[in-house]
Amino acid sequence: MPPLALTMGEPAGIGAEITLKAWQALREGPLAFFYVGPEELLRSTARRLKLPESVTRIEHPAQALASFANALPVLDLPMKRDVVEGRPSSGTAASVIASIEISVRLARDGEAAGLVTNPIQKSVLHKAGFEHPGHTEFLEALSGPGSRATMLLAGEGLRVVPVTIHQSLASAIKSLSSEAIIATALAAAEGLKRDFGIAKPRLAVAGLNPHAGEAGDMGDEEIRIIAPAIEKLRARGLGVSGPLPPDTMFTRRARETYDVAICMYHDQALIPLKTLDVDGGVNVTLGLPFVRTSPDHGTALDIVGRGVADPGSLIAALSLASQIARHRREKGG
Amino acid sequence: MPPLALTMGEPAGIGAEITLKAWQALREGPLAFFYVGPEELLRSTARRLKLPESVTRIEHPAQALASFANALPVLDLPMKRDVVEGRPSSGTAASVIASIEISVRLARDGEAAGLVTNPIQKSVLHKAGFEHPGHTEFLEALSGPGSRATMLLAGEGLRVVPVTIHQSLASAIKSLSSEAIIATALAAAEGLKRDFGIAKPRLAVAGLNPHAGEAGDMGDEEIRIIAPAIEKLRARGLGVSGPLPPDTMFTRRARETYDVAICMYHDQALIPLKTLDVDGGVNVTLGLPFVRTSPDHGTALDIVGRGVADPGSLIAALSLASQIARHRREKGG
Repeated sequence: MPPLALTMGEPAGIGAEITLKAWQALREGPLAFFYVGPEELLRSTARRLKLPESVTRIEHPAQALASFANALPVLDLPMKRDVVEGRPSSGTAASVIASIEISVRLARDGEAAGLVTNPIQKSVLHKAGFEHPGHTEFLEALSGPGSRATMLLAGEGLRVVPVTIHQSLASAIKSLSSEAIIATALAAAEGLKRDFGIAKPRLAVAGLNPHAGEAGDMGDEEIRIIAPAIEKLRARGLGVSGPLPPDTMFTRRARETYDVAICMYHDQALIPLKTLDVDGGVNVTLGLPFVRTSPDHGTALDIVGRGVADPGSLIAALSLASQIARHRREKGG
Repeated sequence: MPPLALTMGEPAGIGAEITLKAWQALREGPLAFFYVGPEELLRSTARRLKLPESVTRIEHPAQALASFANALPVLDLPMKRDVVEGRPSSGTAASVIASIEISVRLARDGEAAGLVTNPIQKSVLHKAGFEHPGHTEFLEALSGPGSRATMLLAGEGLRVVPVTIHQSLASAIKSLSSEAIIATALAAAEGLKRDFGIAKPRLAVAGLNPHAGEAGDMGDEEIRIIAPAIEKLRARGLGVSGPLPPDTMFTRRARETYDVAICMYHDQALIPLKTLDVDGGVNVTLGLPFVRTSPDHGTALDIVGRGVADPGSLIAALSLASQIARHRREKGG
């Protein structure tokens, strides 16, 4: 299997630090990856944080496999601007975007087994003219027509897929529709089959209101929107439970009864996931023509340069990308 | 200290079973309680589930202390109707309500150290003419004017207080106000001081929207409603953080930084609590002239009579009521 491509992310954030630490943790394992970004950023970060400066420049992804055990392979992408730790600048935005574009091309061409992305600072990219709301939308655009990206978050013993994501809670409620729930649930089921090797995925669909509305006493979205969506999904042969009371569907016993929770809004999905497992959460983008995962945290500007950044989520993202790539290969998908 | 009064709750539910099991678990400890309900219900439940039929009738709460180690003390309250397991009937509603009223009177008079309530079936009580939305509102009414009940839920390592509770999510957002947040936070702070012995409580106030709105990009309730409430609370000398991004405020590390989370809606409070600790959660009613706790689950009609009901939450509720009663006594509160 080819190596995974890892983007640089925001150079003023913790990306370089957790990349070096993830390489240390994974160098002796079966998985290999290469960094698409400035070799000098890795080297200066290693020196400053007293991490091993074991970095090697490669010209082609295939070279990463041979060198990975000895040094972190880098497809060098020099930057024009100096980086100030903790201070993102729009002067580096072009490099950040180029790292993503190059990595996507390598993943689409099969030279990389998949794509893992370090966190970006969206506000800085937007100032530099980046027009996409976020990482996932940019990847969807790079994937060409027909791609519909769906965000799945995977933690220890829990996978969640939110139907609505980055919008106010009031607008999320207004925009909820049976169609959106059905499309999200189908994408989740397809992703579990293709990427996680689960032949018959069990879906648990959350209600929106307390106690899932108690038969309409506390909100009618379950009756008007969610239950009809579940019926249509069942009619297509899927194993679906719900609408479930949101507060009891994430207990340990409840989590064992399904493979993925389809959630109505951002925090309904993210609160249980992060409550259980903040360091090992992984963001997986389903529905793209290539494998893509990312750590489930931001650029952590407040702790840059202190050497305390936890590489756990990035390591989990690399491991999961590798597993997904293997599942897709086994299926010829 | 006097014993605790434990109400019967819905007689067709798991109340009698978990009461018998809780007595078995606690009989050798320092805490004593007595059951206010039909002696015969406890005896028949014990026989059917092959639990020890160690039940003793008492005429006055004080007698409970001497007999508790040997038998579960019962202040007998005969019922006119037979109980069918798992089938609540409005014919028993009068007994259910009388059990609560008697227990409240004993707690107010100081003959009981506090009140622990088994779960009730609200719909059945309402059919029988019970006019209160739920347990807590009934207790508030029984407490006389000036009482303002506030629900706190306590689990292992996490306490939460929701500002809005049993209403649809859309209406919860609409009814959110700075005044309600301030009143709830003050009641929570007062309760932590008086009932939990925390001299300087640290409050964490949640945002409403994803990422707490990201400076207004995803909803403005944080700016319009929540942040101004926090400022007023700080001006009163309280230690308050927030508005916090709801998804990261319940991680293990975050939980260590506060004593109580003030939550904007039911599931924002209940999801993290139940995700962490479904069997040991306790509902505490702050702001009443007597101590009141209850288990954090319902009547569990689906598992009645099988002997599998978990008494963990009731045991935790009894233990916490005893601790709170001790704190109030020490303060002379």
